[in-house]
Amino acid sequence: MAKISAPTSRKEAEALDSDDPLGHARSAFALPEGVIYLDGHSLGPATHAALKRVKEAAETEWADGLIRSWNDAGWIDLPATVGSRIAGLIGAAADEVMVCDSVSVNLFKLTVAALKLAETKTIIVEGSEFPTDQYVAESVAETCGAGLKRVGEDEGAAALAQTSAVLIKSVVNYRTARIADMTEHEEAAKKSGGVVIWDLCHAAGVIDLDLTATGAWLATGCTYKFLNGGPGAPAYVFVRGDLAGKLASPIAGWMGHSQPFAFDSKYSPKTGTARFAAGTPGILSLAALDGALGAFDGVNMRMAARKAKRLGDLVVARVMELGLEPISPVEGHLRGGHVSVRHEEAYAVVQALIADGVIADFRAPDAMRFGVSPLFVRYVDVWDAMDKLADVLKSGAWDRPEFKARAAVT
Amino acid sequence: MAKISAPTSRKEAEALDSDDPLGHARSAFALPEGVIYLDGHSLGPATHAALKRVKEAAETEWADGLIRSWNDAGWIDLPATVGSRIAGLIGAAADEVMVCDSVSVNLFKLTVAALKLAETKTIIVEGSEFPTDQYVAESVAETCGAGLKRVGEDEGAAALAQTSAVLIKSVVNYRTARIADMTEHEEAAKKSGGVVIWDLCHAAGVIDLDLTATGAWLATGCTYKFLNGGPGAPAYVFVRGDLAGKLASPIAGWMGHSQPFAFDSKYSPKTGTARFAAGTPGILSLAALDGALGAFDGVNMRMAARKAKRLGDLVVARVMELGLEPISPVEGHLRGGHVSVRHEEAYAVVQALIADGVIADFRAPDAMRFGVSPLFVRYVDVWDAMDKLADVLKSGAWDRPEFKARAAVT
Repeated sequence: MAKISAPTSRKEAEALDSDDPLGHARSAFALPEGVIYLDGHSLGPATHAALKRVKEAAETEWADGLIRSWNDAGWIDLPATVGSRIAGLIGAAADEVMVCDSVSVNLFKLTVAALKLAETKTIIVEGSEFPTDQYVAESVAETCGAGLKRVGEDEGAAALAQTSAVLIKSVVNYRTARIADMTEHEEAAKKSGGVVIWDLCHAAGVIDLDLTATGAWLATGCTYKFLNGGPGAPAYVFVRGDLAGKLASPIAGWMGHSQPFAFDSKYSPKTGTARFAAGTPGILSLAALDGALGAFDGVNMRMAARKAKRLGDLVVARVMELGLEPISPVEGHLRGGHVSVRHEEAYAVVQALIADGVIADFRAPDAMRFGVSPLFVRYVDVWDAMDKLADVLKSGAWDRPEFKARAAVT
Repeated sequence: MAKISAPTSRKEAEALDSDDPLGHARSAFALPEGVIYLDGHSLGPATHAALKRVKEAAETEWADGLIRSWNDAGWIDLPATVGSRIAGLIGAAADEVMVCDSVSVNLFKLTVAALKLAETKTIIVEGSEFPTDQYVAESVAETCGAGLKRVGEDEGAAALAQTSAVLIKSVVNYRTARIADMTEHEEAAKKSGGVVIWDLCHAAGVIDLDLTATGAWLATGCTYKFLNGGPGAPAYVFVRGDLAGKLASPIAGWMGHSQPFAFDSKYSPKTGTARFAAGTPGILSLAALDGALGAFDGVNMRMAARKAKRLGDLVVARVMELGLEPISPVEGHLRGGHVSVRHEEAYAVVQALIADGVIADFRAPDAMRFGVSPLFVRYVDVWDAMDKLADVLKSGAWDRPEFKARAAVT
C-alpha cells in the first residue's frame, strides 16, 4: 500500500494552514458559521462576489435597466465572456468555451455532432459513468439510429482503440474520483478514428486541466461544483477551435445564429464554439457564475490541485485509521477533489455528520463522499471533520430512524 | 375599416385607469421612475416579489443552506411547482406543465417526440414564425431525417389539413401579434393525423389561453415576456396528460428519470410531462420566476386579455391618426399583447423614443413594437407614449446618427 503523507495531529494541520499559499482564497466565500463544508464537489458555496453580482443583475440591471441591459450591461456577451473565464481554468483558448444549457443538453448536442466525425456510428459509455451521461448516450442512439455499446469501468479507452466510435467519458468519476488519463484516451481515439467527449463536471476547478495539451476535441461540464456558480448554474461547451466550423449543433437555436437579430428564416451558424448556443441565456444564473469565477483570479490551478490532493490524502489516512475502505484511489495523483468511502450505512452516517455540522454527501448505494475544494477547505476542517466522523461511528449516533429516512434528494 | 373604441383625450385615459379593476396589479412591479415601459412582450419588468425571492434564494438558501436546500428549500420541486402555477394561466392541469430549459431546446424535444405520433415524418413551419422555431424545425429534420415543409404566413393549418405532419406554430406571432385560431388548427391536426406544437412565448400571460378546451397536445413557451420571470428565465413544456406516457424526450437527462437519485444505469422516465426535464434546474432563475408569478395571483386572465386589447386599441387609434400603418391586426380580438407598426426608420424612431423615456422595441426590418402588458401598463402611459411618438416623428428627432447606429441586440 502506498505511504500517505498527511498531518498526524491537529497542530500539524494548523501548521499546514498557516503556510498555505492558497489560504487567502477562503475569504472570498460566504460560508455559514458552525459548518465544515465538504460538499463543494456537489454544490460549491456562494462567494461574496457572486451574491453581489446576482443582486446587481436583478435589482439594477433587470429592474432599472430593463430590456436595455441586453446591450448596456453586456448580457448578450455573457455566455462568451464567462466562457472565456472558464477557458482559462481548463487549458482552452478564450473563444473555445461557451456557457449554455445544462450538461445533459450539451452532451446531447456534442454527441450528435460527434457522430458525424466518427467513422463508426456507435456511442460507447461506461457503466460507471454519471447516470445522465449514460441516459443521454441511450437517447442519442435512439434518436439518431446509432449503436450503443456499454462497457465496464475504465474500459472505454480499450473499446475506443478497437472502434472508431464516440466515447463519453468523465475526467473525474463522480463516484470514485478517479482521474482518467486524457492523453491516453485521445491517442486511442486518434488511432481508431473515434472521438472522445469529455465530461468535466467533477474535474474543472479542482484538477489542473489542459485540454489543449491533451489533444481534447470536445467537452462539457457543469459550473455549480468546484466552480461555485450556484445551484443549477448553466453548463458550458468546449470545442477545439479548428474543429468547430466542421460541426453542427442539432439544436439550432437563435443564439447560435451568426446574426440572431437579423431574423432570417434560414439558419446560418456562428463561427466557432458559439454555434453550440441555443436559446436565450439565463442571465441571473450567469451573473452569479460570473461573480463566482473571481475566486479563481490569481489562483494557480497546479497549486490548487496539489492542495486538493493533500487534503484528500488526509481524508484517506484518517478513514483508513478508522478501518474504513476508500472507494477512491489511495494514491493522490489518481484522485480528483473528493474522497469516496464505503460504508454499509453511508446514508445514515452522512446524515448524522450533517446534523453535527459536517456537510458531506452520499451516493447510492454505499458511498460517503468528502469534497476537498482547495479554495476554501482548510486542513483543520478536514481534521475536525474526521474527528466527528470517528465520534459518529464510535457512538453509533447514525443509527436513528431520522438519519435513515431518505429525503427526495440524497 | 373597423371602428376602434379608444379614449380620445388624456382625461378619458385617466378615467379608464381610475375604473380599471386591474389597476392594483401595477403596485407589484418595481418599475423605474421616469420610464414608460412598453416592452413587456420582450422582457417583463421585475416585481418586488421576484427580487425578494431571488435574494432569498441566493443569500439564504444557497449561501447558508448550501446543498441542504435541494430538500429543505424545496429546490428539487421547483420545476414542477412553478410549472403548476403557469398551468393555471394557460388552461392546463397542474401536472401537465414542467419548467425546464429554453424554448429552443424544448421545441427540439417536443418536435422529435411529435414525429413519432405523426403519420407523415415531416415538419411544417411558416416563414413568418419566430426564427428559432424555423431553425429548430430545420435542425430536427436534419437530425431525424424528417422532411421540412416551409409554408407562408398563416398557411400552416391548411398544410396540416392535407398532411399528417408536425406543425410548429405560435399562438401569437412575434411580429404581427396576430392570434392563431387554436381550435381550428387542432381540428385540422386531428383530421389529418398530424400534430401541432404550440409556441406560447408571446401569448402566455396576456391572452386568455385554454389549452385543455382547445384540444392542444403539446406546447412550450418562455417566461421572460408577459410572465415577467426575468432575463432568460427558464421555459416550460406542456404535454396533455393522457399523452405524456406515450412520448419520449430525445434528451434523456437525469431530471427526467423516475428515480434520479437511485443512480441507475438504465433510463426509466418519470410519468407525465416531468419526463421532459433534462439537466439540473437553474435555481436562481427559477426562484425569480416563482416570485414573479405572484403578480398573477387573483388576476382573471379574461379580464387581463380584455385590458390588453383595449390598451392596444388605443395604440392603434393613435398611430393611425399619425398616418402610420399597423402591422398588427386593427381588430382587437385578433391581436395579442403588443402592437406592431411599420416605419421605414423604425429602429431610429424606437431609439429616439427610448432616449425620451418610452421603451418600445424594434424587429427587423421595419417594425416598431409597443407592448401593452395589462398588469402594469396604464391607459395614460399609452396616451403619453403616443404623444411622445408624435413629437419624435414631427420633430424628426430620430434622424440622428446615434439613433441609427445598430447595437448588438436590436
